[in-house]
Amino acid sequence: MRNFLLPIVLACSLPTVTIAQQQDSLALRHLADEVLTHSTAYENLRTLTKQVGARLAGSPQMVKAEQWGFKALKAAGADTVYLQECLVPHWVRGAKEEARIISNRRDFIPPLNILALGNSVGSGSAGVTAPVLEVASFDDLEAKKDQVKGKIVFYNYHFNPTYVKTFHSYRDAFIYRAFGASRAAKYGALAVIVRSMSHGANNNPHTGAMAYDSAYPKIPAVAIGLQDADRLSDRVKNDPSAKVFLRTNCRMLQDTIGHNVIGELRGTKNPGQFITVGGHLDSWDVCEGAQDDGAGCVQSIEVLRALKAIGMRPTRTLRVVLFANEENGTRGAKKYAEVAKTRGEKHLLALESDGGGFTPRGFTSTMDPALKAKMISWKPLFEPYGMHDMGEEGGGTDVGQLHAAIGTPMLELYTDSQRYFDIHHAAGDVFEAVNKRELELGAFGMAGLIYMADLYF
Amino acid sequence: MRNFLLPIVLACSLPTVTIAQQQDSLALRHLADEVLTHSTAYENLRTLTKQVGARLAGSPQMVKAEQWGFKALKAAGADTVYLQECLVPHWVRGAKEEARIISNRRDFIPPLNILALGNSVGSGSAGVTAPVLEVASFDDLEAKKDQVKGKIVFYNYHFNPTYVKTFHSYRDAFIYRAFGASRAAKYGALAVIVRSMSHGANNNPHTGAMAYDSAYPKIPAVAIGLQDADRLSDRVKNDPSAKVFLRTNCRMLQDTIGHNVIGELRGTKNPGQFITVGGHLDSWDVCEGAQDDGAGCVQSIEVLRALKAIGMRPTRTLRVVLFANEENGTRGAKKYAEVAKTRGEKHLLALESDGGGFTPRGFTSTMDPALKAKMISWKPLFEPYGMHDMGEEGGGTDVGQLHAAIGTPMLELYTDSQRYFDIHHAAGDVFEAVNKRELELGAFGMAGLIYMADLYF
Repeated sequence: MRNFLLPIVLACSLPTVTIAQQQDSLALRHLADEVLTHSTAYENLRTLTKQVGARLAGSPQMVKAEQWGFKALKAAGADTVYLQECLVPHWVRGAKEEARIISNRRDFIPPLNILALGNSVGSGSAGVTAPVLEVASFDDLEAKKDQVKGKIVFYNYHFNPTYVKTFHSYRDAFIYRAFGASRAAKYGALAVIVRSMSHGANNNPHTGAMAYDSAYPKIPAVAIGLQDADRLSDRVKNDPSAKVFLRTNCRMLQDTIGHNVIGELRGTKNPGQFITVGGHLDSWDVCEGAQDDGAGCVQSIEVLRALKAIGMRPTRTLRVVLFANEENGTRGAKKYAEVAKTRGEKHLLALESDGGGFTPRGFTSTMDPALKAKMISWKPLFEPYGMHDMGEEGGGTDVGQLHAAIGTPMLELYTDSQRYFDIHHAAGDVFEAVNKRELELGAFGMAGLIYMADLYF
Repeated sequence: MRNFLLPIVLACSLPTVTIAQQQDSLALRHLADEVLTHSTAYENLRTLTKQVGARLAGSPQMVKAEQWGFKALKAAGADTVYLQECLVPHWVRGAKEEARIISNRRDFIPPLNILALGNSVGSGSAGVTAPVLEVASFDDLEAKKDQVKGKIVFYNYHFNPTYVKTFHSYRDAFIYRAFGASRAAKYGALAVIVRSMSHGANNNPHTGAMAYDSAYPKIPAVAIGLQDADRLSDRVKNDPSAKVFLRTNCRMLQDTIGHNVIGELRGTKNPGQFITVGGHLDSWDVCEGAQDDGAGCVQSIEVLRALKAIGMRPTRTLRVVLFANEENGTRGAKKYAEVAKTRGEKHLLALESDGGGFTPRGFTSTMDPALKAKMISWKPLFEPYGMHDMGEEGGGTDVGQLHAAIGTPMLELYTDSQRYFDIHHAAGDVFEAVNKRELELGAFGMAGLIYMADLYF
């Protein structure tokens, strides 16, 4: 009923709002025209994905990506561009993983399509060979805890198709990827296999970060593609002789040095105050990281370019931050927040794009209720661009660090999420999966929100 | 301001609306769960696109598609399935078209990527060779009318990127494809080349229907890819010696017989009244017609399957119509409307899906204002599924025939339109361009609208 009741408030204040909103409406139209006609976001994304490619923290491509970001921010018209150093984790996959079902039956069994989970330990060169215990959930694991010892635990938790917003399915399912290994190791498991967090129609496994609980042994953890998950499940149920062999070659090395790449557009009136807009520069090692989160980077750069190009430069200093290492450490954002706190910086708001460059539907946010009500009152201005969702609580992982450190109001662009988990952290996250206009409409939405906040917050 | 003022009306009637809406809300949730969990739409689309493929009216695949539709409707649980015969145009492309720039300069010039427009005449085996007159619009053509004689007229009208809804760009641009040939023939042109109606990032030409004005000679008409359009424009501007050679081999044969494929789910209370839901079964000959309009066909079939499967069968008879020949004649819909009128059928509403199986955003419609207000009052029920756009005037080409004949309220599913014209009537309109969940959400929206209309209209 939220969206249902809210407009009453707006309607009551209609006469006084209208004139200002007409001016704002024209300004936003001008901004949209600029982005939809002259955006460089799509071509920037092409060079990031095709010339740099996969760029996990600690990889050589991480350094190339930083150089790319530096140049792109300069080209967009930033007054100043600089690197902010931070320590980042350095996890490497090593040689390609392998896994297969071993059975006393004589049928041909194709290999299993797996990917080690980020931050996980390798299996050692001998690999792990063990019977498989399939569990449907953590509750099911607890019920079967006496059978876990010496087994490979297979979390076959299905991505829930009935959530309309797929991020809700993700929030529901990702705990098996993040915490499944230690939960199983507690009862003596030798390794875990996790069904990929996806509605996808192909068999690509989806990696992503996991973490160990130091109370238990660190065991190998892998993701498996959806079709192979079904195949493995069938086999386990129907073939008592079945075991799985898996070998992963990943390991965590010593922390290394990475950088947030920061470009500033000096504020016209209050250059000592800041508006942060950003995405994360790192990606998983198995894809081009086009939607996650090349899109957020190039959209943030476009915000700066467009606002400057048509003379709508904010009164506060606009800071575009390409965050280092969101995927497996959030170290870039932590550093950024720490520095802002130490310096006593005043931030008006921090806006992130990390839900892919899909058609924008609005914003999620966490901020003071009075500010939020103000933002929601802008809804009629954003609806002509298909953005109707202004009220939902939220905010991004990276801007969340600044919010936690100094209370900055935080927002995340909320996008149409139907296609995101088809490709998320998987081989399909490539440039070709991004639509130019969807990407641009999102960049416009971000620029528009910043324009309004700078005027009215 | 439409969306801004409307909710006041809703808010005033809040207390009485709430209880009924809660029941409706639960019913819609039940329906959404069914579609998102058990839909056969995506697999139906796979067989239509991969086993039948391109299916222009008059082609052998048209017959195969009718057989596919018959089977699919039976499998979905229709009480009755039958074919409704109609005459359809029979246009054939013939051998692949060719076009190239001819110049006195010695540089290498790659061939031009063209497609004859649907319904157009062929060039004859000698082809057409002539200098090119580029025009930006019909106004520009009129200004240059004295230069047209003996030339190939090149309509280089750009698809407007500043419209948010891409169908508005299409409405703006398609007149050059539809009417450009005769407008140029009037002044003695030998052929026309039309810039494709697309925001796309590739060079695929986009075909589509054209029509001749019988007052002027019928001249060949082709579409050209965007990159080649830019290349041709550069050449025409910079190389006075440039001519274009083009040859097309298409022709219109005698009308032949096609069929609407109709499946009925008998109404529980008023089986003699009807609700029509449909898409068109034909597609252009150069693609799989997955978004246009295989999606609309499988969604319409899914509406029947889902409503029946969970016992939400409408009180009126639900008629799923897979219309013959929307693309170059609308003959199927005309026949359907004619028969409905002759029989004096009473139709509660007619709903079409022909904007692709993208994320649904709402409905466009044309109906009595009181009915429309009622439909708009359901907005809070559809918003949780991302459907916010309930008010815009519109309706589809096929249901428009029924509306014109007997005044039936007509609606069209309104979808996220950003990607549609990347692939519309072009080689890229294949199964892989359709996302399973987006398709299913649209089918749910259609089923939900029909459920509500059957209760309250």
